[in-house]
Formats: sequence, C-alpha cells, structure tokens
Amino acid sequence: MTLPRHLLRFRSPFLKTRWSIASRSMRVAYQHTSATCVPATNNKHISTSTTTSSNPPMSFPCVDKLASRTVELDDNGPEPSYDRVVTGYETFKYPKPFLLDHGGILPKVDIAYETWGKLNAKRDNAILIHTGLSASSHAKSHAKNTKPGWWEEFIGPGRYLDTNKFFVICTNVIGGCYGSTGPSSIDPADGERYATRFPIITVFDMVRAQFLLLDNMGIEKLHASVGSSMGGMQSMAAASLFPDRVKRLISISACARSHPYSIALRHTQRQVLMADPNWNKGFYYDGVPPHVGMKLSREIATISYRSGPEWELRFGRKRAQENQTPALCPDFLIETYLDHQGERFCLQYDANSLLYISKAMDIFDMSKSATDILKEQRRRNLPKIENILNEKQTFAEVVGDQSALEMHATSAPTSGSHNNDKKRPTLTTLSETDPAVQDLIDGVKNIKMPTLILGAQSDILFPVWQQKEIAECLRVAGNKRVTYYELDGMFGHDTFLIDRVSVGGAIKGHLELLD
Amino acid sequence: MTLPRHLLRFRSPFLKTRWSIASRSMRVAYQHTSATCVPATNNKHISTSTTTSSNPPMSFPCVDKLASRTVELDDNGPEPSYDRVVTGYETFKYPKPFLLDHGGILPKVDIAYETWGKLNAKRDNAILIHTGLSASSHAKSHAKNTKPGWWEEFIGPGRYLDTNKFFVICTNVIGGCYGSTGPSSIDPADGERYATRFPIITVFDMVRAQFLLLDNMGIEKLHASVGSSMGGMQSMAAASLFPDRVKRLISISACARSHPYSIALRHTQRQVLMADPNWNKGFYYDGVPPHVGMKLSREIATISYRSGPEWELRFGRKRAQENQTPALCPDFLIETYLDHQGERFCLQYDANSLLYISKAMDIFDMSKSATDILKEQRRRNLPKIENILNEKQTFAEVVGDQSALEMHATSAPTSGSHNNDKKRPTLTTLSETDPAVQDLIDGVKNIKMPTLILGAQSDILFPVWQQKEIAECLRVAGNKRVTYYELDGMFGHDTFLIDRVSVGGAIKGHLELLD
Repeated sequence: MTLPRHLLRFRSPFLKTRWSIASRSMRVAYQHTSATCVPATNNKHISTSTTTSSNPPMSFPCVDKLASRTVELDDNGPEPSYDRVVTGYETFKYPKPFLLDHGGILPKVDIAYETWGKLNAKRDNAILIHTGLSASSHAKSHAKNTKPGWWEEFIGPGRYLDTNKFFVICTNVIGGCYGSTGPSSIDPADGERYATRFPIITVFDMVRAQFLLLDNMGIEKLHASVGSSMGGMQSMAAASLFPDRVKRLISISACARSHPYSIALRHTQRQVLMADPNWNKGFYYDGVPPHVGMKLSREIATISYRSGPEWELRFGRKRAQENQTPALCPDFLIETYLDHQGERFCLQYDANSLLYISKAMDIFDMSKSATDILKEQRRRNLPKIENILNEKQTFAEVVGDQSALEMHATSAPTSGSHNNDKKRPTLTTLSETDPAVQDLIDGVKNIKMPTLILGAQSDILFPVWQQKEIAECLRVAGNKRVTYYELDGMFGHDTFLIDRVSVGGAIKGHLELLD
Repeated sequence: MTLPRHLLRFRSPFLKTRWSIASRSMRVAYQHTSATCVPATNNKHISTSTTTSSNPPMSFPCVDKLASRTVELDDNGPEPSYDRVVTGYETFKYPKPFLLDHGGILPKVDIAYETWGKLNAKRDNAILIHTGLSASSHAKSHAKNTKPGWWEEFIGPGRYLDTNKFFVICTNVIGGCYGSTGPSSIDPADGERYATRFPIITVFDMVRAQFLLLDNMGIEKLHASVGSSMGGMQSMAAASLFPDRVKRLISISACARSHPYSIALRHTQRQVLMADPNWNKGFYYDGVPPHVGMKLSREIATISYRSGPEWELRFGRKRAQENQTPALCPDFLIETYLDHQGERFCLQYDANSLLYISKAMDIFDMSKSATDILKEQRRRNLPKIENILNEKQTFAEVVGDQSALEMHATSAPTSGSHNNDKKRPTLTTLSETDPAVQDLIDGVKNIKMPTLILGAQSDILFPVWQQKEIAECLRVAGNKRVTYYELDGMFGHDTFLIDRVSVGGAIKGHLELLD
C-alpha cells in the first residue's frame, strides 16, 4: 500500500520528532518520538520514548513559538519593552502622599500627560480626554513623538476635537505603565518596584490624580471631559466628583456601574494571566515577563472588543492555508488574527497594570450606596496621611471631591424620595421599582451639565442597554440636557476607535454646542 | 497614627508572607517577604528578599489553590478522574479500521451508548440523540447508572422524548473520553494512549461511527435524529449523510457552518489549555493533567454558554464577601461562579478530547464545496484501508454516505442552477448573491425530511441568525417541511438544557407530528 503525498509530507520542523512509516497487516503505523522537545513541564511521570502509532503525531508550532520566546526573554534578561513603547510625554510630579479610595497610599504620584492646542488666556478651553484600559497619553502625534496616537484622526486643527479651539489634554492613568505611577513604578519605601504591593485603585482615584494635574496647570474648569470605554467611566466620575469643574460631559461605550457579563469577561483575562507561572504573583520585573498569559488575555479581550458580523465579513471561514489538514494550533484566519493581536500586545503592556486597571473597571459603580461607602472609607483613612501632609489640607481637598461634605450633609434617602416629583421624566426601559436603578439615579444626581452618551449596538462588552441606563438615570435624576445616540455598524466595542465620522461628529457637535 | 482595623487584619494565610506595620514620617511601610511561596516559576532572575513597602502585598488564594492541586495530583499519581465520571453504558466494539474524513485511521472503534425505551418489532421507533461537546451518553438515569442525565427531564415515559413510544439512543462521540474511542484511548499500534497522535476528526466522522452502531442494532431507519449545539451539527450531518435513514430532523442552537466568532471563542479555550505546561503537547496521561488550562478553558466557555441578562438578574454586582477590600482573585459572585464552573469541570473531562472535538466544531461546514472536498479526500484515502479490511466493502460503505457516489455523479454547478426555478422560496434575511449562502443551499439539498430548527435569542455562541440561516437555506434548497422557532428567555446557549417547556414542547410536537 502507499500513503498519500500529504501524509508523507507531514514532518514538523518544530517538534523535531522523527517518524517513519511502517506498513503492517492491520494498521498504518508511524514511528516517532513523543514529547521530546516540550520545554517546561512539571510532569515528572512522563518519559520520552520512541514508539509507533496508527497516525502521525500532531505538530504544535504555536506552543513551540511561546516556548522559544520564553527562552529568548530569559537569555536577553528582563527589561520589558513597554517601558520604551511610549515616549515624548511630559510628567507632572505630585510630591505628596495620595490617598486612594480603598485605603492604599501612594507616597508620591507621577502623571504622564500630553497636550495639543493652546490653553487660552481665560484658561477655559481645556478638554480632558480619558483613556481606555491599556492606552497611553499618546492620543495624537506631535513633535516629541511623531507616531500616530490612538485617536490620531479625531484630534487636530479643524478636526472633531479641534485644536484651533481647544487645549486637549490626555494622561496615562495611575495604575498604568506608560509614565504614570503604577505597579511597575518604584515604591519610594524601599526602592523596589511596587509589583502587587501596589494598592487597589478605583476609577475615581484615577480622576483625582488627573485633577491634581489640572490644578497644577491652573485649569479651574474644563470645557469638557471626554472618554470612551473605561475613559467613559472616568469621564462620568470626573463630572460627579467635580461637578463645578466640568462644563460638558461625553461618555462613549461605557457604563455607570459594571455589570456581571463584563466582569466575567475581564475575570477570565485576569485568571489566564495570573495562571502564567512567569507572572509569579506579580514579581516578574527582574525575570521573564508573563508573555504567554498576556497574549492569551489579549486574545480573550479582542473577542469582546469586536463583533461577529465584522468577522463574518472580514474573515468568514477563510483559513490561513486553505489546503492544509486542519490543525489544533491556529488554522482559520480569525485564529491567526487573534494570535497576532495577542502577540503584538504581550510585551507592550505591563501585566500588573492590566490586573489593577481591569479590577478598577469591575468595581466601578456610581450608585449612591457604592460611592457613599468609598467616601466613608476615605474619611476613615484620612488620619493615615493627615499628619504626614506638608501643608494643611481641607477634608474636601484630601477627599478630592468638591461635593463630598455637602453630599454627606444633605444625602437623600436612597429610594422613595422622588415619588412626589410629578414633572421628572420617567424611565422608559428601566424598571421603576428596581432598587439598583433607584440607587444609580441617586448616585448621578449632581451630574447636571450637558451630557452626551454614545453607544454602539454591536458592542457586547458595554452593550447599548448600559448606555441607555446612564442616559435614563441622568434624565430621571434631573439632568435636562442629556443627548443619547446609538450607533449602528459592526465594529463592536472598538467603534469609538474606528468609526470616525459617527463618533467624531457626535463629539464635535457636543463640544461646540451653543451655550 | 493608627491604621484602620481592616488593614490590620490584612494577613493572608495563603501567601505565608510576614509583614508588620512601621510608621514613618513620610510613608506607611509594610515589612514582608515577597514571592516566597510561589511554587513554579521559570524566573531565574527573581530572588526572595525581605523588604518594606508603602502598602501591604496582595494575597492570591486563587493562585495558591491551583498550585496546591498540582502538588496533590502529582503526589497521588496520574489516573485522571474522568475515566470514572460516567459508568453503566454499553459498548459497541467495531473491530475494523475506520477511515476518517481527513485521512486518519482508527484501527478499531469503541462506541459507548445508552438506550431508553424499547425498540419495536418494526425497528422504526428509534431516536438518536446527539450530544454537545463535553456530554456523555448519559442523557437520562437508568438502572445501571441512577445519576441524573444531562437531559433527565426531557426523556422518559410520557415525557417530551416519550419512551413509551420511542427507543431513545445516545452515544458518546468518537474523540470523547466517556467510553468511545478518543485521544485517551489505547492506540492498538503500540499499546500507548493516542494522546495527540489521535487523528483530526469531523462531525461527519462522529455520525458515521454512530451509524455503525445503528447497523449493529439492525436499525435501518431512525424515527428522528435530534441534537443541540454540536449535537445539532451532528443531527444535520446525519440527515445529509444518510437522508434515507433519517425520517425527522431536529437541530437546536447549532449552525450549518461554523462562523468566525464561535471559532474565536473556541480558539481561546484551546490556546489557554495548550499553554498549560502540564498539557505537554497532549502527553500528560502518566503525569499531572492540565487542570489549570482546563479550568480556565471552561470559564471562558461558560461565558459563551450563558447570557448577560441572566447574570444581571442572578448575580448583579453582588460580591462574595461584601465588606472585604476588592481583590485581584475572584471577588464578585459572578467570578466565584465562573471559578466554580471551571473547578468542577477541570478533572471531569479529557483535555485532548476537548481540543479535538472543539476543532471538529470549527471545521464543520455543510456547504457543498466543503463537503465535496471531504468526499474527495475519502476517495483518495480509501486505498489506505482497502487492503486491510477483512471483508470487501463498497466505496459507499467506506465513505459511509449513501449519497456519496450519486452526488458526485450528479453534482450541480455551485451557483446559478436555481435561476430558472421560479417557485422556490426566496431568502428573507440572507443575501441572494452571497456565494457562501448559495454554497450552503447546494450543500443541504438532500435534507428533505420534516425538519425543526430551534434557536435562542439570547445565544451568543450560536446566534439566532445562524439558526435562521439553516432554516432559510433548507427551504430554498427545496425542503417544504421546515419549522423554525426562536425562543426568548435569557439562558443563552444553555437554553436547550434549561428551558424544558419551550424546548421540550417543540421537540415533542415535531417527534409526534402526524405524517
């Protein structure tokens, strides 16, 4: 008997196994060495043996590739490349201890930022852009960094965020790894990197840090706070923490409280990352970074960033090599695409930053009961930094929230307080009797500025019903200038990065609203 | 200064790190030992050092738990427990070589199966139930295995699949690990487990194996072929391979060709599993099984099995321990739920079975061009087993497809052949000009029996548009008895396991249709 040519060619350069074809009366047998070159295994029971089998062994180029990258990173020493990914930003160094919502303290805080356009004489034309999870302050190219930014086409003279009119600021969030203080920063306490000795941060903490920068720039009031995804959360948090310092609010593809499906998606990303032995409970800075966990985590994230219809059109059932026998490693084009996305990201971003910021998104909740707890925690933790602050600060300054005291003094009962208000708009899609909805309405009461809420119908990470929830709660809470747009299209959560015309147009319209 | 009580209590029994609180003028510092008890790391650069930090280190009970299970499994030796998960099934032993679609050969095949009800004298009351990815033949309890089956309430006297009327059969698919031949089976060629020397299988291969069992039982014609998820794929494959042997077809929450979003979801599950060092390219049977990869993989899968609205109602933003500081390990109830799902599954199913069957789902495609390729491969590979078969078999027998020869002889051009057929139904939601749609229509031409297609609107893994695609293509291809139902509700892909009344009712109605 003869074997078909495609089987005779089945010889993997990666596995380095040797197998030859032996014809027997009742079987087709292949001689090969199994599991010879698998790099890292804890399986002490497994031995290498040369044997024969009914079919050729599969090859696993995708596994071999990960293993060789580990070896390469180990050989070349540590120094993950994300330190060098973003350059050309400015750094504001806040020299005093910074109290966090959950009781942690940063002895000092660096905030990396970039700006475009000019601050006018009245200092009232600043727009603060908030980033999503993994973005840097580099929203747009400029002389110090000519690489295109993540909102390159949105910002510029005459563009949607018009730098002829506005002074646009973007920061790297605290917890990040692109210049702002985060887990990869040095803890002044001992000169070592924080790693997972970094404290839990919240979206509100990120915003408070940004406002320290605004204070330093002498910007009392923002023309607008603008953000997408986690940036939309920050944008709302800014409007809520500093209602008198934000003139206009834009929140795109975000939510006012994280919902379990989104938490689940982020949970798996964190779990996959933390399962990488090289993550080493966060202490990997002197060794091989958890590039495998990061890659896998990014692949899962990518699924939540795009949509089925887009991939249907873009990849369909196309395979990387149409005539090859199916493989367990990436095979369909959609797989090689995901693989590539993971690949590109795995050394570009700090694993610990991903964990902390992803968690900050999970715990984001603007409901009154939730923000009350945070305020109470801050009040309780205040003594921790009180006597180490150089200058006397008011409680509100430390709490970083204009309305903190006032809200505590006048806080309304969580529910039932609106029953006599006949004129307020009613909920159209949310349940009037759901205490969680009422809690959220109470939580966003002080957001009264003109607000634009934008969502994409194909977004599964922050579905449009969550955008609708924000808009309705704001309206019922008394905001009379809420604009709500739903975008069609197929770009899922990433619509805010891709759909320039629809997203950009809505932003421009809102930024340049006549008062 | 004093620290709040909740910080003083921050002492992890898992990390076994020691840290004490030292107050300094400018910082709150914690003395601790970092990275002391992390079990497996390849990071040669990392040293253990006692140091102080501004904040206490985080604890990672979820990581410690995985590490201690690895140690436990290593101590107790191999023998993964899925071998004992399912008992009480019958085994049909097919003693001859079995040719697979992609050229692999199984020298002999075991098929585990269970039955309920009685085969009547005419042998025409049999219903074949096809399973989803990880299910066993145990669809319903019986004397030999009294544990509830996965469709326990659907099957039984007077139930939706009425065992007073029907003889219900369920098999474990080939590639599985619950009694049928799969990667964990012994390769007769050398007496070792196949592992990843197991050949690529297709959904069509699974069905061919099931029909060997039917042949053995003397069942010429099924009353119905019924399946959900991958079982729905098998059900359609059965109707297509053996159109004269299937009287009624039911396909629930499946698709006629896998789409990229579903492939992406399965891809991440496979990648996560294969990244577990204990997976060891599939050769783990004598060592520690890749329980971490399996757990993570199941957590990702679980997200695709359920829906946001269900979790919103069930978990909302509830946390496992409401008053605890947020943690990077599971914290919200939705996280502990996912963790538990992964936990429960990780040793119950064979990792290699998951890889092979998940891939079989990806490559499932009933389009004419795709099935033509498979048929051509089978024809080409036939000589491989021709001279080792004990008895002479016809080509069609080996190909396992009644219509194989006929279809080759009469195959219509891929497109354009219907232009003169004025009376055929037209597509309502699909594009008439999409060649992929036309290809699928051509591929399902021989499915003419009464067909029920059922989908759940909350399913993201097999969205309803894919159910609609099946129904429309069947109708346009000439099937005049296609029933299409969309179910509401919030149980996502798992609707077929949970929504007894809606799913069961539709099944019963179709099974007991008057001819």
